[in-house]
Amino acid sequence: MTQSHVQSDQMKTIKVVEGGALEWQTVSRPIPSIDQVCIRVVAAGVNRADILQRKGMYPPPKGCPDIMGLEVSGYVEAVGEGVDDWQLGQEVCALLPAGGYAEYAIAHHRSVMPVPEGVSLQEAALLPEAVLTVWANVFDIAVLHPGETLFVQGGASGIGTTAIQMAKAMGANVYVTAGSDEKCKACIELGADGAFNYKTSDFEEELKAVGGADVILDMVGGDYLPKHINALNFGGRLVHIAAQGGLKGEVNILKVMMKQLSITGSTLRGRNDIAKMHLANMAVEIVWPWVASGQVRPVVDSRFAMQEAEKAHDRMTSGEHIGKIMLTL
Amino acid sequence: MTQSHVQSDQMKTIKVVEGGALEWQTVSRPIPSIDQVCIRVVAAGVNRADILQRKGMYPPPKGCPDIMGLEVSGYVEAVGEGVDDWQLGQEVCALLPAGGYAEYAIAHHRSVMPVPEGVSLQEAALLPEAVLTVWANVFDIAVLHPGETLFVQGGASGIGTTAIQMAKAMGANVYVTAGSDEKCKACIELGADGAFNYKTSDFEEELKAVGGADVILDMVGGDYLPKHINALNFGGRLVHIAAQGGLKGEVNILKVMMKQLSITGSTLRGRNDIAKMHLANMAVEIVWPWVASGQVRPVVDSRFAMQEAEKAHDRMTSGEHIGKIMLTL
Repeated sequence: MTQSHVQSDQMKTIKVVEGGALEWQTVSRPIPSIDQVCIRVVAAGVNRADILQRKGMYPPPKGCPDIMGLEVSGYVEAVGEGVDDWQLGQEVCALLPAGGYAEYAIAHHRSVMPVPEGVSLQEAALLPEAVLTVWANVFDIAVLHPGETLFVQGGASGIGTTAIQMAKAMGANVYVTAGSDEKCKACIELGADGAFNYKTSDFEEELKAVGGADVILDMVGGDYLPKHINALNFGGRLVHIAAQGGLKGEVNILKVMMKQLSITGSTLRGRNDIAKMHLANMAVEIVWPWVASGQVRPVVDSRFAMQEAEKAHDRMTSGEHIGKIMLTL
Repeated sequence: MTQSHVQSDQMKTIKVVEGGALEWQTVSRPIPSIDQVCIRVVAAGVNRADILQRKGMYPPPKGCPDIMGLEVSGYVEAVGEGVDDWQLGQEVCALLPAGGYAEYAIAHHRSVMPVPEGVSLQEAALLPEAVLTVWANVFDIAVLHPGETLFVQGGASGIGTTAIQMAKAMGANVYVTAGSDEKCKACIELGADGAFNYKTSDFEEELKAVGGADVILDMVGGDYLPKHINALNFGGRLVHIAAQGGLKGEVNILKVMMKQLSITGSTLRGRNDIAKMHLANMAVEIVWPWVASGQVRPVVDSRFAMQEAEKAHDRMTSGEHIGKIMLTL
């Protein structure tokens, strides 16, 4: 291991204690193994998966620390054996399997990315999870084409705001739902061609009225599944990245056959390092230039000191946020 | 129109009469329009879709005759304007949108195929629907790879016997279900690596015991859908071509996400002429050599004179057939 300077072998991190409360505790500082990079964290993104992990419903993969946090930005602090693509002190952001809510976090060296031009080091923490999720699902799995129509459930979420901008940057039409007129307005300002307030309108009808969808990015599932099947055009692709509205949904198989639909989904965390490397490469090659040109930017809802992670989670569960919530150190 | 010789402008065909009975009636002989070929039929394949059409549940596409029959073989009798790829008198087989249960049938010239080496002109009538369906769904949509495992519901059906042979010819492992030990034996003889009698065993458990499936070709749907999701490996593809067991099925969205599954389906009849041309090209280029080498052969369950189409339908609805049922003229 190569390390920038000798320091304490301890660090502070957010731990989930009995009853689900969060505490700022002292733990051992992680040491990068082969192919790993240790990042001194300056900011971390908050994701809904963190809240599931806090509740014990989304445990980290084997071998990963029992610490929340899927994305960070900061400085390369140390590198493990075999890592020659990152220099000590370099400003980076990274996708993590876990461990972002801490002063130091370990990433696979292929999941580390340079900070794109056009954003601050802090803001870069808000890119990895959303950009790689949208790439993996909308671009890789659903193969959205320029001129096609993407429909996103939850356009004002971190994923939603990112999906709107990335899909517009590649030349697609984008329609979204959001839970308030204010959020709908924010989505339109980000480039969405239309935004439907799901509390006051029927998205299936609204979507049909604008010509239906070719690709749907969904985080709701449950009762929305039959409505999505109805709103998809011939050859349409429905991609699930969460199922906040219910794990089970009903499929009309005849409609799937007649319209040649594809119902799919994926998780980011469960992918292996090679798959994540591919996504990080696509982000750096295709999306970072969009960030540099201003076509894609992280939408910062709010910032909290990492010690106040509980407040950040309250903000997310309130559902009032637009874009991403940041933890800072 | 170019025609081989002057004849009556009438022909005999099977018509569905009041109450669903079948009658051998005289109707006008069809005249090929632009891009169409008229075939003097010597044999037609019977498909389950014919029985649905007979019941009024699967009407022919607009502009097509209200006559059953999706595949025939015979001689080119006449060609419409713009057709220069077929000669009068040539032996051919063809995929049809409708109209095969007749002395003369109209096909788009790009859905006409030469008779492959290794089969009789009659037998060639049994290839188009099954070969193109398997290509469209297992090879094109589900992208079955050599070394992967295909699972087919109904291995002894016309589609099933064809899928077994085509998948083995391209180097995949194949497991199937069938409704009797005799049918299971027939599937093994065709090359299946295993066949499960669905009346005496649980296909989900049987399939898991042999390592799960990468691709499932299903004609059942309904309650099988959750079992198929359970039996699919990571990255698995489930393709529906019918839903004889129920149009609606339940999907566990979390399992779809965790295993990155794809649930799809298609119909052959609804495809446009370009899509069918592609399938016919693949059949001629890839599958016809397999027929010539004996790797793929039409499994002939039984032959009936076309006038006795009702008996052929009884044979199909009995569920006792293995392979394809032929109507002859």
